[in-house]
Amino acid sequence: MLQSQLFTKTSRHVSGDETSINAKLLTQAGYIDKQMAGVYSYLPLGWRVFRKIEQIIREEMNDIGGQEMEMTALQSKELWETTSRWETSEQIMYKFEEKGAAPIGLAWTHEEAVTRIAKRFINSYRDLPRYVYQLQTKFRNEPRAKSGIIRTREFVMKDLYSFHTTEADLDVYYEQVKEAYLKIFKRCGLEALVVEASGGAFTKKYSHEFQVLTEAGEDYVVYCEACKYAQNKDLDKAKAGDNCPQCQTNKLKDGKSVEVGNIFKLGTKFSEAFKLYFTDEQGKQQPVIMASYGIGPGRVMGTIVEVHNDKDGIIWPENVAPFQLHLILLGESAEIKKQAEDLYKYLKDQNIETLFDERDESAGTKFKDADLLGIPWRAVVSEKTKGKIELRNRLTGKIELISNKELLNKFSVQ
Amino acid sequence: MLQSQLFTKTSRHVSGDETSINAKLLTQAGYIDKQMAGVYSYLPLGWRVFRKIEQIIREEMNDIGGQEMEMTALQSKELWETTSRWETSEQIMYKFEEKGAAPIGLAWTHEEAVTRIAKRFINSYRDLPRYVYQLQTKFRNEPRAKSGIIRTREFVMKDLYSFHTTEADLDVYYEQVKEAYLKIFKRCGLEALVVEASGGAFTKKYSHEFQVLTEAGEDYVVYCEACKYAQNKDLDKAKAGDNCPQCQTNKLKDGKSVEVGNIFKLGTKFSEAFKLYFTDEQGKQQPVIMASYGIGPGRVMGTIVEVHNDKDGIIWPENVAPFQLHLILLGESAEIKKQAEDLYKYLKDQNIETLFDERDESAGTKFKDADLLGIPWRAVVSEKTKGKIELRNRLTGKIELISNKELLNKFSVQ
Repeated sequence: MLQSQLFTKTSRHVSGDETSINAKLLTQAGYIDKQMAGVYSYLPLGWRVFRKIEQIIREEMNDIGGQEMEMTALQSKELWETTSRWETSEQIMYKFEEKGAAPIGLAWTHEEAVTRIAKRFINSYRDLPRYVYQLQTKFRNEPRAKSGIIRTREFVMKDLYSFHTTEADLDVYYEQVKEAYLKIFKRCGLEALVVEASGGAFTKKYSHEFQVLTEAGEDYVVYCEACKYAQNKDLDKAKAGDNCPQCQTNKLKDGKSVEVGNIFKLGTKFSEAFKLYFTDEQGKQQPVIMASYGIGPGRVMGTIVEVHNDKDGIIWPENVAPFQLHLILLGESAEIKKQAEDLYKYLKDQNIETLFDERDESAGTKFKDADLLGIPWRAVVSEKTKGKIELRNRLTGKIELISNKELLNKFSVQ
Repeated sequence: MLQSQLFTKTSRHVSGDETSINAKLLTQAGYIDKQMAGVYSYLPLGWRVFRKIEQIIREEMNDIGGQEMEMTALQSKELWETTSRWETSEQIMYKFEEKGAAPIGLAWTHEEAVTRIAKRFINSYRDLPRYVYQLQTKFRNEPRAKSGIIRTREFVMKDLYSFHTTEADLDVYYEQVKEAYLKIFKRCGLEALVVEASGGAFTKKYSHEFQVLTEAGEDYVVYCEACKYAQNKDLDKAKAGDNCPQCQTNKLKDGKSVEVGNIFKLGTKFSEAFKLYFTDEQGKQQPVIMASYGIGPGRVMGTIVEVHNDKDGIIWPENVAPFQLHLILLGESAEIKKQAEDLYKYLKDQNIETLFDERDESAGTKFKDADLLGIPWRAVVSEKTKGKIELRNRLTGKIELISNKELLNKFSVQ
């Protein structure tokens, strides 16, 4: 895309009430816009990143048999009363209770909704197991949202729900999801620790969190540098300085971290409440055994920025970058312009995602913007490069002078 | 996908409060689930159709320079007071006015939000024109939602906003969008009339609706069978029986119709309210000229079902069908099973979207389900087909006996 046509521009300033690195950098670079505390729009560049993260999640969910669907944000009081969560989620749930109209709430999770729907289709052991997920917008009344897009009041969540005949069957799938989650975070450029969780709004037992160590986090974990054992710091099991309970080395540390995903064995809590039973092979009625698994793509995006940045801006991992290549034209001679334009046209034809900075700006401005935007590779065409291209890696800063052909070979999708 | 693993099943029954054809058929076929009046979840098959419609819209929007973004549903009272629409949208807008907290509303349209954001980036004639769009969930308090997924309280809308220096520039783009819209509807299997609109919540002037004739519609249009001239029936211009004001023939009819899209010239209404000005080439401040353009993919999907069905079920146009091919195995011999399974595997490897009905059900049940689901092509492998495949077109009912190779040639993506 031509940078001169981009809807957004970078900005050197950011409003003083943004304290997190992700909110500051993403705002300055024009990736997001704050509508109000804890509520952000994704602008075109930011939305490109967001959709890449969504697609990585989608691919890994499909790979473990997940069927994508889309449930509703508007939900009836009646639905939530089945589990008594209409009352118990008083603090978190946005509700409309208008005179003369049936009360409505905005869903902050979908166990109730999915269990009711599953009842339409699951009757027999032959209908199990089943795995469904969605990438859907949830709402939570977070009074102190202050971590940029890491904790917001409106956010897309990938929530997967699984339905099983036995705990053993659930256990097998639970491990598959754990592996899929680690693949997702790795593809997004994050190293996540699998942490024994201390619970939350859900059941305290049988849940794991995926934590990424960064100072922006709101969580604290105790983790082993040697074997990757990790637990929530609130758990009274091991402390920094102790020997690791798993590998017995004394590499146990603690640190601020962000929870980028979580997985819960729900057991029969929701199936009992909704009478979601199946007939087993002996003809006996049994409650379906369930689990739920969440990842917030926006939270992942914010965490990526917290982990991958330097004083000049963002450094996107290649898999989630808004563009693969930032092509920069410096100079006004017809010859140089033609070299850059021909190259851009060729890159476009080859489906190599390229942002082409053909603006009438100084080299300094263009380089500053490029560093802030954080596209992994910067390719400069100028008088100085003499028909070649100066390719710079945003992460390492390493520069090489290469020919058009070498550039195309490097970026061509195999 | 294996039909035995599908999350949903078809159903012969549908609750009595569904009166529209689209809600009945989509519910029976397991494409949607009603959470409450006017609020529907999209189940896996339905979500496949929905996402295909979204993708068609996305491609056509990108083709006319649209940059995709995603704005928020939660919006502040303050934002909407800028245009006085906090008060005037009392009936339609869901609002939370909690004690001690700033009032929040759920956006039912995004002119306010996008104009405020545009102010961050548009200052000069050099920053114009700009085109941004989103596929985003909106909320409207519709007390009498009764047309299935055609009119709902929660729905995704594709809303495009354009920003221009002059009316002449807007006019050119407005025509481009009109063409793009007609392409979208055509690709979705709908024939839409471009209708002079009689207005609504927006400005009365300079707007057009895209109407599809069907008995399920809530709108009425006067249209010419000869030249496709059309106007809203409320407009006091022409009546059925009159000569057509465009081609002068007496082919003017009127009919129930569904509004599947609309386009509005907003002028400077929103830019004046938000002080979205640009500096022109003479250095003078001018208000930006705007337009907005909407399509609801869910409404399009509902309309497709209203138009394309018969007594046995849905008949999806190929571009939006959840699968291209419904492969049906009849018979229990190892040989027939192997033929069907090998064929399915091959189709999968070739990325031909196939639903494989390998369930242990009767031919009658399988055929009834296939007709209800409405996948455009049904391929039966059975003892009777003697190593060949019986291919049936859902629309025409035409049956042909073909070889594996002929089938693969027919469906291979070029």
